[in-house]
Amino acid sequence: MKQLKGNAVVGQSGGPTAAINASLAGVIRGVSAHRDLIPELYGMRNGIEGFLSSDCVSLLPLFEDEKRLRQLEQTPAAALGSCRKKLPDPKKDRAFFDDLIARFREKDIRYFFYIGGNDSMDTVAKLSAYLETVDYEMRVVGIPKTIDNDLADTDHTPGFGSAAKYVAVTLSEIVRDCAVYRVPAVTIVEIMGRDAGWLTASAALPGAVGAEGVDLIYLPERPFTFEQFTEDLQNAFKRHPNLVVAISEGIRSPEGRYIGEGAQSGAADAFGHKYLAGAGKVLEGFVKETFGCKVRSFELSLPQRCAAHLASDTDLTEASLLGSSAVSAATEGKSGAMAALERVSDKPYQCSVVFRPVAGIANAIRKVPDEFINRAGNGITPAGIAYLRPLICGERTLEYKDGLPIHVII
Amino acid sequence: MKQLKGNAVVGQSGGPTAAINASLAGVIRGVSAHRDLIPELYGMRNGIEGFLSSDCVSLLPLFEDEKRLRQLEQTPAAALGSCRKKLPDPKKDRAFFDDLIARFREKDIRYFFYIGGNDSMDTVAKLSAYLETVDYEMRVVGIPKTIDNDLADTDHTPGFGSAAKYVAVTLSEIVRDCAVYRVPAVTIVEIMGRDAGWLTASAALPGAVGAEGVDLIYLPERPFTFEQFTEDLQNAFKRHPNLVVAISEGIRSPEGRYIGEGAQSGAADAFGHKYLAGAGKVLEGFVKETFGCKVRSFELSLPQRCAAHLASDTDLTEASLLGSSAVSAATEGKSGAMAALERVSDKPYQCSVVFRPVAGIANAIRKVPDEFINRAGNGITPAGIAYLRPLICGERTLEYKDGLPIHVII
Repeated sequence: MKQLKGNAVVGQSGGPTAAINASLAGVIRGVSAHRDLIPELYGMRNGIEGFLSSDCVSLLPLFEDEKRLRQLEQTPAAALGSCRKKLPDPKKDRAFFDDLIARFREKDIRYFFYIGGNDSMDTVAKLSAYLETVDYEMRVVGIPKTIDNDLADTDHTPGFGSAAKYVAVTLSEIVRDCAVYRVPAVTIVEIMGRDAGWLTASAALPGAVGAEGVDLIYLPERPFTFEQFTEDLQNAFKRHPNLVVAISEGIRSPEGRYIGEGAQSGAADAFGHKYLAGAGKVLEGFVKETFGCKVRSFELSLPQRCAAHLASDTDLTEASLLGSSAVSAATEGKSGAMAALERVSDKPYQCSVVFRPVAGIANAIRKVPDEFINRAGNGITPAGIAYLRPLICGERTLEYKDGLPIHVII
Repeated sequence: MKQLKGNAVVGQSGGPTAAINASLAGVIRGVSAHRDLIPELYGMRNGIEGFLSSDCVSLLPLFEDEKRLRQLEQTPAAALGSCRKKLPDPKKDRAFFDDLIARFREKDIRYFFYIGGNDSMDTVAKLSAYLETVDYEMRVVGIPKTIDNDLADTDHTPGFGSAAKYVAVTLSEIVRDCAVYRVPAVTIVEIMGRDAGWLTASAALPGAVGAEGVDLIYLPERPFTFEQFTEDLQNAFKRHPNLVVAISEGIRSPEGRYIGEGAQSGAADAFGHKYLAGAGKVLEGFVKETFGCKVRSFELSLPQRCAAHLASDTDLTEASLLGSSAVSAATEGKSGAMAALERVSDKPYQCSVVFRPVAGIANAIRKVPDEFINRAGNGITPAGIAYLRPLICGERTLEYKDGLPIHVII
């Protein structure tokens, strides 16, 4: 294998997570360990979009010690900024790619690392496909991240474990909160995940590991019917009066229509405009109508993806490992690949880093498999719990100042 | 002062907080230190309501070691359960109180500790007023808790510091999350606090202590106008494209109408408090209409009051101290009082425990004072920050199992 000397560039793309900066820290660690081959590491601001306008920052001088890298790891959301730019088809828009290559050449960039989800892997795939056709050697490796855990060809994705830990811990706290009164009440918590229910499935963890758990869980992988929901609630009320229900924002009717689709909350503003409501608000209205009991719903919203203060140590450690492994593998010749995790065992939990061809990953969505969802479609099986449990384990001791976790702003 | 021998009873009442169990732990510690006078400590389930149906649990055998008490302190929401029962007027319904006294007499209860907010202090006040008129000696002490921080006659209330820390940390994370994109966007975060804006004011902490902060903050203490809001947003957009706005659920028009009134459920609790929701959604619609940019809104909802995983150590420590001090003071003759905090200094932060007559506290609401709110009514002054900052400081190292904080279920 030919040694390739030259600089590296790294970018972050897609929605924020609590672990995406740990992946960046891993890339910085990886490059620092290969300074003989890679003298300079550029960070592109706002992903490929920033690179196209030469908006780059030299990263190595900013992170010369491990303490600063640990602070970066406890910083949520993409420290370099993000974008949602989709690259054109390399066969159709060669000018776009030629411009890109000229920019790489100008900075002697020979290593390209991109941290992101499906769309980012699409960028990696297109860029490496184009590189096959031109006389410029550059190695391109994708580093996965998404709270949705729906990327193909990896056991799980960095960012998911921390989001799952946030969901599990928060639901365990909400269950305690709801348990204090004796009046019948339903609390509906809407969780991110339009097409895959991984994050909502994590709501099953408190109940499965001995704490008090949520009563019902609905994922987009199974059709949702109001008849079944009514029956499920009736049965749950026989056990205790304070029900907590976790639903994915993407739950759908048997006909495939989103439950939240086209629904209106009934609230109107000063101008009489009505608001579109989510699935939670629709179920809230339904429960009020059907059961007449106290009911409320809310979304976990942004905190579920950016609550770095509650990150899973397993997640942050793996995120960094994938980042540094991507660099090592690239120096050894790997390109057009995504760093991925392969589970070796559940007990003790062990994953190894593998590299998978990036072509094809971009367009696949990995859903929660059938054997992880119970027959009634309202809970998670022991197999699902065995998969999820290790991913939320471990807590970091964060560095705080004035009562707030320290965040690194690049 | 006459020594009073007899048993004690403790209850929790009102809305859950992350620190209400630390107050309970304090009472248990206090009673444990006075076993010579108080042989037995009963916990009433679901507050005074449970006591009226003799639903009590003997607490001392459940918490014989400090490790278990620390686990109780890291458990959110009232471990004994709560209620929203309002006691009748002692002058009008003597039969009710005579029944209560008979129950105290039966268990030889001579100490009554009640942990709660305004309504709970109302219970303490009525009970001690009635005790003045009958031949049964019992000492009655209130222990404050409320995330709203609106109780009179105390520098602040246990539960507030932890909720404020959750708000401050979460907003600092949301600001990072929103900063990753370059397109103009407004994120509106709705925070609890119907009549007092203390919790919303805490959103100012990240920006004030050197981190990136939120752009605009609106409290119920100042009238809210859409004209001023528009101007504030226009000015903020001149600085950067990703605006984060923190609003109290209780913001009102100059005429005193809740901004969220259109989305109000119309339901009211036993005390006549109306349920509010929706100011954020109203502003979301307004921004979309006026600025045409990306806009979203969400409520911090239940997690802000029950996120024990992020409790302020200062808060938990003070909550326990008030609990144990209430017991000591009662053994020394104190009754008809509320344990309160008096600030000695900001730097270094120091508070001492004092006792205040409970009569009158119940019906007063302590609002954010004018000097804590900036002239424009959209931010917090340095004086406000000096008040708030110490309350969120300090982090506990919690005991986790399987990735989740251990909770005590009584």
